Amino acid sequence: MPEFRHDPVVGYWTIISTERSRRPVEFRPRELPEERRCPFCEGREDETTPEAFAIRKMGTTPDGPGWDVRVIVSKMPLLSESGPAESCSHGLYDRMDGIGRHEIIVESPRHAHDLDELDLPAIEKVIRAYVNRLNAFKKDESVKYALLFKNHGLISGSVRDVIRHSRSQLITLPVIPKRVKEELASTKAYFEREGRCVFCDILKQEKNEAARVVSENKTFLAFCPFASRSPFEMWILPKEHEADFGQLPPKDFHDFALILKECLIKLHDLLEDPPFNLVLHTAPYRHKTGDYHWYLQIAPRLTKNAGFEWGTGIHINPTPPEDAALLLRQTKVRHARTS
Amino acid sequence: MPEFRHDPVVGYWTIISTERSRRPVEFRPRELPEERRCPFCEGREDETTPEAFAIRKMGTTPDGPGWDVRVIVSKMPLLSESGPAESCSHGLYDRMDGIGRHEIIVESPRHAHDLDELDLPAIEKVIRAYVNRLNAFKKDESVKYALLFKNHGLISGSVRDVIRHSRSQLITLPVIPKRVKEELASTKAYFEREGRCVFCDILKQEKNEAARVVSENKTFLAFCPFASRSPFEMWILPKEHEADFGQLPPKDFHDFALILKECLIKLHDLLEDPPFNLVLHTAPYRHKTGDYHWYLQIAPRLTKNAGFEWGTGIHINPTPPEDAALLLRQTKVRHARTS
Repeated sequence: MPEFRHDPVVGYWTIISTERSRRPVEFRPRELPEERRCPFCEGREDETTPEAFAIRKMGTTPDGPGWDVRVIVSKMPLLSESGPAESCSHGLYDRMDGIGRHEIIVESPRHAHDLDELDLPAIEKVIRAYVNRLNAFKKDESVKYALLFKNHGLISGSVRDVIRHSRSQLITLPVIPKRVKEELASTKAYFEREGRCVFCDILKQEKNEAARVVSENKTFLAFCPFASRSPFEMWILPKEHEADFGQLPPKDFHDFALILKECLIKLHDLLEDPPFNLVLHTAPYRHKTGDYHWYLQIAPRLTKNAGFEWGTGIHINPTPPEDAALLLRQTKVRHARTS
Repeated sequence: MPEFRHDPVVGYWTIISTERSRRPVEFRPRELPEERRCPFCEGREDETTPEAFAIRKMGTTPDGPGWDVRVIVSKMPLLSESGPAESCSHGLYDRMDGIGRHEIIVESPRHAHDLDELDLPAIEKVIRAYVNRLNAFKKDESVKYALLFKNHGLISGSVRDVIRHSRSQLITLPVIPKRVKEELASTKAYFEREGRCVFCDILKQEKNEAARVVSENKTFLAFCPFASRSPFEMWILPKEHEADFGQLPPKDFHDFALILKECLIKLHDLLEDPPFNLVLHTAPYRHKTGDYHWYLQIAPRLTKNAGFEWGTGIHINPTPPEDAALLLRQTKVRHARTS
């Protein structure tokens, strides 16, 4: 059973992922493993866990072909699904069972598609799946938060295979992470002080200044944030104030798909398919006040953090966001990447 | 001029390092550059900036050979040394000139020595230099914090050369970083609540439990912290309560050198020279209360962070610290690494 451990000094949680426990020899530098046969492709549904959700063509049956987006539980889950999260403390130290659900959202039946290569209706279906999965756990009192994210071109520390099939992930958590709590506390404090949402104010200032804007449509604004921690970082915000991504109405799926595809194509073309993370920042389940505002963060991983970043939390970004935004705006969206 | 930018949501700072500005083409994957002629070796003192501090053999002169440890200002400084830090705000956004001093502490006159390969008297001299440099800025009211750190086997994002000469770095800052403020606030709250220092309590519990202890001598304890964020992470704490590393008395240099060398040799031998960061956690300058407790963090960089860590701040550590400590304890310190 993986376990959450609470740092007694500042209160962050760490997941000690015993299921993935590695001996020292496994950390030694080695060649990347061979890409193995992809279990996420259409026709290989029996190589995955049973589907939790799918968007399917009429007349097809679960766990068979005929799907556009398919959601399954990870075969190498970060957390365990069994039982309630027991916690205990010993002296200064608190620990909690690592209970949670780890889903894989397979974005396309075809292999090696990047999200931005899909056509707009296909991206809209991915967004529909995001909304569905985020809402799937909202009545479960044991789930405090769900993180929806995507790692593109990255091999994370504990995952040893390198299947390139485009997919996102959703992990449910029995705690609200410190980073999320901080954002909620800050936006609440701003709201109480100013009577307005800080993200709504950011939207207004970004539209006025225009220097950091990458793209805009009727419903969304994409820009490089003022204090970008990674070069070419982008945030996509809904123009209307809404704390919960799960409330995104189907009428807005098209505009969201449009701006997301545009931002990803620009990033791909300008930086030649850089590694990046997508991270959805949304209010925790059953969050009462409406002072938060959801956004999608696109964070290219182009720099390496070392002792300075680790010791201070201050990131060093070599590309001013105004320069990044200008270059991204100037990058024409080639229709060739629309399949 | 590099600039500090303040995130208006949660209040982290980012350094926009315009001096190192990189065009998109420079982020594209490329071969590592050739190692260039090392300017840090003895006899090449004219290839660096003038020395700010050195521990020298009797009768030798500054900026000539004959030194054991030599401190110079970086030729590619992260921050600029000129002028007072001007700050301004524009709407929601605050920025501040990136003023600070970026020193390189060259740990040995010979090339490519790792810190743990130096003999004990040489490591004691490095520690003497650390104490000297940290104390050098304590009367300067414009300096709020100095971070002392070391990157071993890592190429940080903005540094393009790969000189392997063993060295540490010190960067002074016009702000107290959020991460440091958090640690101070938490230790203060614990002190007010419990009447004791949280680190002193941690020391007591670690000594009692023993499962995470790596090494101990009269003055210091080294252990793998309970919620270790990286596999094989170690903290070295002085047993006596002291907030400020700058107060380390010369009589303790030997014991600190001893435990540091031991921890680094164990790490080197067990994991075959892994990349790691050393980060010194110490109270900011002119910090009034004594409720903090300095420590040295040794953080091996064996896992990659991706969307989950970025989105939650929760790190995934595949090696329980009890397993890590056992393996580190079992790793005998070979005298061969003592030159």
